[in-house]
Amino acid sequence: MLSKSMEKALGNSSAIREVFEYGVKLAAEIGEENVFDFSLGNPATRAPKKFDDTIVKLIETTDSLKLHSYTDNAGIAGVREAIAKNLNERFGTDFEPGNITMTVGAGGALNTVLRTVLDPEDEVIVFAPFFSEYVHYIGNYYGVPVVVKPNLENFQPDMEEFKAKITAKTKAVIINTPNNPSGVVYKEDTLIQIAEILNEKQKELGHEIYLISDEPYRELLYDGAKHYFVTKYYDNTFVCYSFSKSLSLPGERIGYIAVSNKMADSKRTSVALKTATRILGFVNAPSLMQLSVKECLDEKTDLTYYEKNRKILYEGLTKIGYTCVKPEGAFYLFLKSPIESDIEFCEKAKKYNLMLVHGTSFNCPGYVRLSYCVATDKIERSLAQFEKLAKDCGL
Amino acid sequence: MLSKSMEKALGNSSAIREVFEYGVKLAAEIGEENVFDFSLGNPATRAPKKFDDTIVKLIETTDSLKLHSYTDNAGIAGVREAIAKNLNERFGTDFEPGNITMTVGAGGALNTVLRTVLDPEDEVIVFAPFFSEYVHYIGNYYGVPVVVKPNLENFQPDMEEFKAKITAKTKAVIINTPNNPSGVVYKEDTLIQIAEILNEKQKELGHEIYLISDEPYRELLYDGAKHYFVTKYYDNTFVCYSFSKSLSLPGERIGYIAVSNKMADSKRTSVALKTATRILGFVNAPSLMQLSVKECLDEKTDLTYYEKNRKILYEGLTKIGYTCVKPEGAFYLFLKSPIESDIEFCEKAKKYNLMLVHGTSFNCPGYVRLSYCVATDKIERSLAQFEKLAKDCGL
Repeated sequence: MLSKSMEKALGNSSAIREVFEYGVKLAAEIGEENVFDFSLGNPATRAPKKFDDTIVKLIETTDSLKLHSYTDNAGIAGVREAIAKNLNERFGTDFEPGNITMTVGAGGALNTVLRTVLDPEDEVIVFAPFFSEYVHYIGNYYGVPVVVKPNLENFQPDMEEFKAKITAKTKAVIINTPNNPSGVVYKEDTLIQIAEILNEKQKELGHEIYLISDEPYRELLYDGAKHYFVTKYYDNTFVCYSFSKSLSLPGERIGYIAVSNKMADSKRTSVALKTATRILGFVNAPSLMQLSVKECLDEKTDLTYYEKNRKILYEGLTKIGYTCVKPEGAFYLFLKSPIESDIEFCEKAKKYNLMLVHGTSFNCPGYVRLSYCVATDKIERSLAQFEKLAKDCGL
Repeated sequence: MLSKSMEKALGNSSAIREVFEYGVKLAAEIGEENVFDFSLGNPATRAPKKFDDTIVKLIETTDSLKLHSYTDNAGIAGVREAIAKNLNERFGTDFEPGNITMTVGAGGALNTVLRTVLDPEDEVIVFAPFFSEYVHYIGNYYGVPVVVKPNLENFQPDMEEFKAKITAKTKAVIINTPNNPSGVVYKEDTLIQIAEILNEKQKELGHEIYLISDEPYRELLYDGAKHYFVTKYYDNTFVCYSFSKSLSLPGERIGYIAVSNKMADSKRTSVALKTATRILGFVNAPSLMQLSVKECLDEKTDLTYYEKNRKILYEGLTKIGYTCVKPEGAFYLFLKSPIESDIEFCEKAKKYNLMLVHGTSFNCPGYVRLSYCVATDKIERSLAQFEKLAKDCGL
């Protein structure tokens, strides 16, 4: 007798995981080299060598008891200080250590924020296409997700619909740039408009509306695209970050939340975040990982790898005749399905050993997501398969 | 504008943390050596050397990408297999890898289980004295904690009151043995009686009642005390475990949930646990820590250290005239306050630089908790202070 809300969550099981597991099964039959799996957003380049060297050095030089003991629920003071300083240098922000709460990845950060601000029935606005886990994260605390339809022209949010969807129950808005699944990076003007609308609505409604910026892909940018730090545009912003993609550490669960001193009741909110991370059972972000990322804040994963994959895939697919907005960030490419149903298109793709994730699972039917965290030679070899698939779809 | 439930959580802020922070402040004034801080349950002995050696070896010999990548949400197959085998050898259970879900510590395990089984208004029975975080964990999912009063004779649960508190809304029961804060270990007969009552009530009410066994202190046993593995007594049991205390790794956040194949709908429940750990944002237990504990399942922290502290403290305090049940496990000692109010007693103790946590925060007024994760010489020196405190209280 599971809870009703868990039964619901099981019903909406992850489309990504399903495709991935189908691919694994197929690989066992026809050989791993013949399966073109574009399903998972699992980094394909290793962590910087300095990261692993740092762990070894910490173990060799630090008292073991100190290394593995409970930390302050908000994280180790020196780590928070280093992160605040690093953000200030890179983005011209003015964070102090007290504005940073260390978390168990961005998933932990988002849950911590939502636990802090949501009461049952509170509404959270999300812009399609979006990472389907948001619906679960909001549902954990009995909040209600409110979806703004995708703007298929360029995948920047539709401001008119956004404005129309804000109600007296709106407690928060989630944005994700660079975006999963579209690969699109929000323009500065997009952030300015979002901030304007929210400031206006806050005044009108007489209560705070929080902007939650989920940015694990912040450092994965191409073609000179720029990331604009959201706290500079809107005061009531929670920035949720993870080192999963920038340092290729998704399994280690290490990230943070940054809030500005200009947030309403900022100090009390930081105490609440620290309390939320404690009572949700995270307790503190993994201690050895906190100390290790501190030494690697300027390290980067091998971006040239993703850049090359992106180029080959984008150019190859558009040459075949597929349509897609050129991605400027993350490691995803969002392809228009050449037939009406994206679900049917993904089924057809399986015939050619191509594992794609349907856009329906990102609240954007008619499109499919390709993650290019895949060996480059496989991407090259996949193009012949995509060509057959195109013909099969009458493209 | 924080959520109402977060405002409530902030109101019930941790008494343990408050005393600890007072002690830190005092230490800055009068010197760390003059403050006798018995507040925190932070292990005082280092992790086994093999643990740190294993981390270094893994980094030197394993592909970095594999080491730090996302794992299956339920954990790495080989790790789950090793844990199942180890439990079977030590406790005569019959776990398979599929019965184990790796978690972010026991705090993560408890939240994952509660997210899986609780709907709003569902009741969860807890036996006083208990770790106050349980109230928050239950509240995260809008469940209702129902407290069974302490049995002050021996701190084994009161079965009559337990039976009387089970209602149609009872969804789960939490036990914690060895117990925080009493140090008491549940007898086999206690577990048999709990199982009998629950089996009877399940039949009567026509739905499952889950037993959640929180056992981070399982390996911290003295005087030949024995731990009885709860799944052997009652089928619908979730065992929530952490390596925090047994391997002195509280900051690393690594533990697991074990469920038996005999649990109602066991396989589906395991899928639900894996889903819950994912959607709560834990995603997976830290990957390097999963691989490292796998190699240290038979390692132990230095128990002789705690044993010595326990002996000095228990004998010293009873000689002075204090009353307490001799603890057989964990690293806590639960002292009867010599004056009526435990809160007032803790305030008086501060005058003698003794930091104690009042029993009221464990739902057991009239008692105080001492954690003996403290340097042995400090424990020895603290006895003179306890003597002065006793006189001050008219003991």
